[in-house]
This record gives sequence, structure tokens and C-alpha cells, in this order.
Amino acid sequence: MIFEVLTLFPEMIESSCNYSILKRAIEAGIVELHTINPRDYTLNKHKKVDDTPYGGGAGMVLMVQPYIDAYESIKLLENSTTIMLSPQGKPLTDKIVNELAQYNQIVMLCGHYEGFDERIREIIKPVEISIGDFVLTGGELPALCLIDAVSRKLEGTLGKTESAEDDSFTNGLIEYPHYTKPREYRGLKVPEVLLNGNHKDINAFRFEESLKRTKAKRPDLYKAYMEKSKLKN
Amino acid sequence: MIFEVLTLFPEMIESSCNYSILKRAIEAGIVELHTINPRDYTLNKHKKVDDTPYGGGAGMVLMVQPYIDAYESIKLLENSTTIMLSPQGKPLTDKIVNELAQYNQIVMLCGHYEGFDERIREIIKPVEISIGDFVLTGGELPALCLIDAVSRKLEGTLGKTESAEDDSFTNGLIEYPHYTKPREYRGLKVPEVLLNGNHKDINAFRFEESLKRTKAKRPDLYKAYMEKSKLKN
Repeated sequence: MIFEVLTLFPEMIESSCNYSILKRAIEAGIVELHTINPRDYTLNKHKKVDDTPYGGGAGMVLMVQPYIDAYESIKLLENSTTIMLSPQGKPLTDKIVNELAQYNQIVMLCGHYEGFDERIREIIKPVEISIGDFVLTGGELPALCLIDAVSRKLEGTLGKTESAEDDSFTNGLIEYPHYTKPREYRGLKVPEVLLNGNHKDINAFRFEESLKRTKAKRPDLYKAYMEKSKLKN
Repeated sequence: MIFEVLTLFPEMIESSCNYSILKRAIEAGIVELHTINPRDYTLNKHKKVDDTPYGGGAGMVLMVQPYIDAYESIKLLENSTTIMLSPQGKPLTDKIVNELAQYNQIVMLCGHYEGFDERIREIIKPVEISIGDFVLTGGELPALCLIDAVSRKLEGTLGKTESAEDDSFTNGLIEYPHYTKPREYRGLKVPEVLLNGNHKDINAFRFEESLKRTKAKRPDLYKAYMEKSKLKN
């Protein structure tokens, strides 16, 4: 998987990908990360990438020319998709992450300041994706979330001792509670069932806890899960 | 505002806060950022922070002792809240961001690997917040999103030329399209209305575009907005 990130802050993208599982995936050649800075594609001598909005108002708008030229410098592969990180986009979900993991190349456009000149959207026609109904300074953090979430789905990224199978959302439910050593801490004990080695009991306990938590914390997911299981039976 | 981040990757948090608006807010003393590494609070000689799960299964679980001791090393202010970044949490929204901006101190617990020992939740009783229905390697990127979104709401963070007022979600709608120089690019022109200097026309155009886009891209927000305006009239 090749990630191509158009950003005014390439160091922020590169340094954040230098930890933990993502770092390993890059070292293993499963993930390749390229950054492209639209500032390197400006045709004006001050390397300006933004200007005041037509019609007035606060904030600076990202100029069309540097973004289009930076975008067109990328060699697009056949199985490629282009995403604009934007609060206007479709909210990112585990389902979309799975779909994105099928591509060989994901190009990401990170905005900054007030937003993109609308013609950037019109020319590139990206898929717009949002990571939630809140506003951030730029598209860099959403792009990093997308890179992380998608990379976890690629074969070989997670080691043998890790697993995405039990993660929240994978089966439509929130994850069950985890416990590790010690058996007791400040009077709080690990549930007995997890210590007796009976895997049927353990699985039943975990499934019940998953259901209970989903019902309490995310009634929307619980409802969808129950409707789906009804259809199966 | 003081952000206290419990994380195994303090450098990732610190380096990502070193850009753009957030960097300026820290330099201006509006935001203070502290990181606390649970690894520095381990009592075992190998500085181990995780161990295998009771009951078996893939992944490593974060141990209760280093997290509790790291948490209890923080001097909690009176007007403080503690948040666990977790896919099990309430989805972060602009409304929650506004509420969080009222605190003087936000403590954030970032997980990693398979998850937290459940007793960390039981002892600290954090508010659980999620940035979306997808799985990430750790809570660091969600914590950074929260820091960025909340900081933008603090007085003085955005300069005179910036503004959060027109941002998406602030009025329940998606933002209108922006345009900057040049007037024409590859045959695509800036809408005439934005060039004529009539602010009544410009505001009407922008409001219409905001409505249109919200209806097309986020029918859920459009519906909520229309119901709210009906109540007002």
C-alpha cells in the first residue's frame, strides 16, 4: 500500500508514522509513505499557498494552482483512490477502512486554514472523508488516523500475538473487558471465569460482556447488531 | 488550559503539537501541554507496561499499576476532567468540544495494544470518548484531535484573520465553498456574486450553498437543522 499525502506539514505526517505498528509496517515494506508539499509547486516567488477569500470573510483559502500541480506530480497507479480529508465528508467507519484497504495507493489531500479553493474539489473530484463532526486545524490528523486504521488491515502489519479480529466494531460490537496481572489490585479481582481455563465459559463471558457494554454505551450499534442477528436466525 | 497526556509515546504527542495554530497557542501560554509516560512508573525491573490477557487471546493488555501510579502523580486542578480515548466512548462532536473547552485541565489516557486492564476504568472512572467507529493502534491520534479541536475554541488561539464562526458544524451546517485568486483557472471561474462587493448578496449565496451542501452530503445534519429552524419560527 502506498500512501501519498499532500500536506503543508510533511514532517508532522512523517514523524507521527515513526512509532509502533506503523513504523514496523513501513520497515517491513507493507506500507510506503510519500509526502508532497504543495508549497514546492507554487509559481509565485514568495511560495505563497493561500490567499484571502473572494467575497470577504475571515481566514485564508488554499490556492488551486499549487494543489493541482502537486497532485498531478503523483504517478497514479491503476488501483488508486484520492481522498480529501474534510469535515464535509462521509464519516469514516470500520467498513470504509476495509474498503480502502483493497486499494494499492491512497492519495490524501490535507487542507489547512479556512479551506480549499472550491476548484480543487471540482478538478480532482476526491472522495471526501471526515473523521467526525468537529473542526481541526488541518487534514493532517485525520490523514494519520486513516493511514493507521487502514494499515492495521493489511496482511502482515499485525504480528502473530496481535489481532484485529476481536477489535471493537469488527463484529459490530464493542470489545469485552481485558485483564492482566496481578490477579488482585486494590481489592479489585480478575473475574474468576477468566482464571479457570474453560474456554467455552470464557467465550460465553466475553460475548455477554460485549453485548452488555454495547447496549449501555452504544445503543445504536446494539440495535443494529440485534436486527442483524434476527435476520440470520 | 492544561492538557495532561498519559502515553507510552510522549514524543509523538509533543512533536505533533509543534505546528501551526497549536504551536502558537502553546507559545502564547493559552495552552500548556504535559506528557506522563506510564513506563516511568513501573515497579518491575524491565519497565514492562503490558502483559498477556487472563483467559487467553491475542494481544497484550496494559497493566493497571503503572497507569494508576502515573495518573495519581498528576496534580488535579479543581475544574478538571479525565478522558479515556477509546473506541467504546461517546463519539466526539463539536458540542462536546465546546463543553470540554470550559475546563482548566483535561487529563487524557491513551491506550495502546489490545487495551486497558479493566480495573484502570474502574478506579479512574474517566469519561470515555471515541473519535469514530474505526480502530487505531493507540489513543495518541484521538488525543491530538481533541487537543487541536479544543484549543481552537479557547480565546486568543485563533488570530484576528482566522475565525471559528464560519466553521462547519458551528451553526449546524457544512461550510459554504471558498474561492481565492485567480478569478479563472483552467476555465473554472469564481462565482460572479463573490466579486461584486454586495454583502447582502454574498451572504445569501453562501447561506444557500451551505444549505445545499448539507442536504446533499449530510442529510442527517440537514434534517436536524430544518427541525431546529422550524421551532424558532
